[in-house]
Amino acid sequence: MSKKILLSESEMPTRWFNLMPHLPKPLDPPLHPGTHQVITPNDMAAIFPMNLIEQEMCADPWIDIPEEVLKVLTMWRPTPLVRADRLEAYLGTPAKIFYKNESVSPAGSHKPNTAVAQAYYNKVAGVKRLVTETGAGQWGSALSFATNLFGLGCRVFMVKCSFYQKPYRKSLMRLWGGEVFPSPTEMTNAGRAMLARDPDTPGSLGCAIAEAVEEAAHSSDANYSLGSVLNHVCLHQSVIGLEAKKQLESVGLKADVVIGCAGGGSNFAGIAFPFIPEKLGGRDIKIIGVEPAACPTMTKGPFRYDFGDTAKSTPLLKMHTLGHDFVPAGIHAGGLRYHGMAPLVSAGIAQGIIQPENRHQLECFEAATLFARTEGIVPAPETSHAIRVAIDEALQCKKTKQSKVIVFNFSGHGHFDMSAYDAYFDGKLQDYEFPMEEMKKALAAVPEI
Amino acid sequence: MSKKILLSESEMPTRWFNLMPHLPKPLDPPLHPGTHQVITPNDMAAIFPMNLIEQEMCADPWIDIPEEVLKVLTMWRPTPLVRADRLEAYLGTPAKIFYKNESVSPAGSHKPNTAVAQAYYNKVAGVKRLVTETGAGQWGSALSFATNLFGLGCRVFMVKCSFYQKPYRKSLMRLWGGEVFPSPTEMTNAGRAMLARDPDTPGSLGCAIAEAVEEAAHSSDANYSLGSVLNHVCLHQSVIGLEAKKQLESVGLKADVVIGCAGGGSNFAGIAFPFIPEKLGGRDIKIIGVEPAACPTMTKGPFRYDFGDTAKSTPLLKMHTLGHDFVPAGIHAGGLRYHGMAPLVSAGIAQGIIQPENRHQLECFEAATLFARTEGIVPAPETSHAIRVAIDEALQCKKTKQSKVIVFNFSGHGHFDMSAYDAYFDGKLQDYEFPMEEMKKALAAVPEI
Repeated sequence: MSKKILLSESEMPTRWFNLMPHLPKPLDPPLHPGTHQVITPNDMAAIFPMNLIEQEMCADPWIDIPEEVLKVLTMWRPTPLVRADRLEAYLGTPAKIFYKNESVSPAGSHKPNTAVAQAYYNKVAGVKRLVTETGAGQWGSALSFATNLFGLGCRVFMVKCSFYQKPYRKSLMRLWGGEVFPSPTEMTNAGRAMLARDPDTPGSLGCAIAEAVEEAAHSSDANYSLGSVLNHVCLHQSVIGLEAKKQLESVGLKADVVIGCAGGGSNFAGIAFPFIPEKLGGRDIKIIGVEPAACPTMTKGPFRYDFGDTAKSTPLLKMHTLGHDFVPAGIHAGGLRYHGMAPLVSAGIAQGIIQPENRHQLECFEAATLFARTEGIVPAPETSHAIRVAIDEALQCKKTKQSKVIVFNFSGHGHFDMSAYDAYFDGKLQDYEFPMEEMKKALAAVPEI
Repeated sequence: MSKKILLSESEMPTRWFNLMPHLPKPLDPPLHPGTHQVITPNDMAAIFPMNLIEQEMCADPWIDIPEEVLKVLTMWRPTPLVRADRLEAYLGTPAKIFYKNESVSPAGSHKPNTAVAQAYYNKVAGVKRLVTETGAGQWGSALSFATNLFGLGCRVFMVKCSFYQKPYRKSLMRLWGGEVFPSPTEMTNAGRAMLARDPDTPGSLGCAIAEAVEEAAHSSDANYSLGSVLNHVCLHQSVIGLEAKKQLESVGLKADVVIGCAGGGSNFAGIAFPFIPEKLGGRDIKIIGVEPAACPTMTKGPFRYDFGDTAKSTPLLKMHTLGHDFVPAGIHAGGLRYHGMAPLVSAGIAQGIIQPENRHQLECFEAATLFARTEGIVPAPETSHAIRVAIDEALQCKKTKQSKVIVFNFSGHGHFDMSAYDAYFDGKLQDYEFPMEEMKKALAAVPEI
């Protein structure tokens, strides 16, 4: 068998897969943040274009990918499905491990899959610029890459501590024409309010979201763009799993275990959702979302309505949540430090389709190091969570002598995260016990609905 | 036409292309650094394994690639040949621009093509560790990647200023198990001598080479490894051009212009050499090596015997040189800051086959920025030299209304060079006039042979 299973550009999926109509129980609708009533398309029109709002609410099982989006995706898609044979040999497992290499995109992760689609739909709707937030910078750089290709402006509120700690992600956004500001800024009410409370605040993702939403809502030419959580984002990421299925089929295999790391849930949704109909049809597939033990939204958080940001400006979403005020410990997998989880992923867990797991950061860096030393590529700290569980599953197969087919999403490379590896090798990283009492306090501020 | 022209792993070249027997005039042999007599295989045995020494001197037109090397190369090879259609559209040129994307290797450049082969041959020869130098870190990381896969140790002398300025390249080597030391060190005579002269020296590539050669020569279990310049390195890189030719043929095209940047000459050799027999056969192909105007080895340096390092410990090679004591200005394309040039490339220029050109760094960063904004991928500063000339050739085609096929080697990505882009955008980069008098002084120290 080849090391890499490739598809030609003509074999790329031309339709996105929508999990919504497949769920045994319907998805709970988003609610208006003020009235707590079911939100209407018009309520969202201040920050999203109508074509994306329709997609967000759409229950069609397949949605055509526009030609213009497909054309941009061919810059790096289809991505390779790679047999991790060197890792298998190291582990001495009879399992077959495959990884879908989403790190080959120009921005280095799966994020451009939706950034390109969102930029396109906003362009078609006549929008001139997009405003967003970013934590570690993966999403901000992906959106800068995509908006630049469609001739849109891009403004990114980057969490202040990351802005200074990860200067090269910022440089990447700048190279692609994005404007980046350390959040909180003096440019928004949300930013000014946070600075008034604490002029030296390191910033937070919740505040950066609030700044971006505020600017988009008050601007006539700009919309807001979100890189995860929402239905349309999960939809756009489905190309990952659709390709992976086709690639496995081309070598006569079917997945037994499908794994993705989960922060807001979109890369996990991308690899996993297309395998769900097969599971609902009776095939025994384990579908695992992996989150940090320090931010165990799926494994410890209740399934209830909550806001997406600390300013409570976003719609209320029915999801696993640690409470919108919960501040996760400073683990290096910045992209997994989110209090909430995509409603589609949350529903999949609630309905017994998706199995959530969590892992500590030290065991994840151990797995990432082993991966880099066997398979070569340097994983992002987020991706290391998927690798950890893939290895654990493969070691389980070694015990049970089963040659399962394990597929995980290699969501991004770690070229801009090398300081985290240094900290790991220098023994400066630690694991964090989850502060259950903090979560309870944060959940007390979540409205009872 | 597809955006990317792909080959399957079964279509990978299984033999390396050797330019040596194709040169109309024979290559001048390397000379012993002490006696100035033609060097013998035994002279080199202290630092290289005999199998690589044989390859260095081999005049066979084709050399089989060992199975074990091929297997490792499939981790990222064959690499895509990509149509730069977005760049073409921006330029409004009738030319067809293609780039061979060598940045997809785990180390991010073409360097692993030879690192893997060298690690393999040393392993077969019973060597336990490899010692090398690195400037900006591309070669040191590629060799760390390769030695790790073959279970060899790796020690890298990294030029001290880069060691501290580019910490993440160092982290990468560490992740792959390489030991990295800021050169000059107290571990070698060469290092101690340099520190005695100037305890605060920022180090130099010449000194780092001398340290690595010295350690390898005095160690019973270690060999030296060089990432460019030598014949066997150019040989190992020929997979680039062999694949590119096959990829063009698969869409019914032939190259009219072939371009690579040239520091020591190996990535340029890799893309260009396999096209040379066609040119010698009478086809009109322009084969362009591009170097920095601040380090114009090919365009300003004479073609004569010189040493590879400042300590005069390497064999004397007949090559274009600025003098082994010449210190190039501090441009960001660190990989192109070398006083010499591969003897095979130098002979190709002397024999009228290869056309050397030079470009200033600001126009190269301008080209790199345009490339990143049209084609997405972030170029390494070295690679930007090839892009600059590809753009210039395409603009020339616009004037002459010719739809030439232009192929260049995208030798590496710039993920670890983002500070250079920041400096460019902040207006902190400058061009350097070439100090002709400095070169003359440096050449005065080169032995007359």
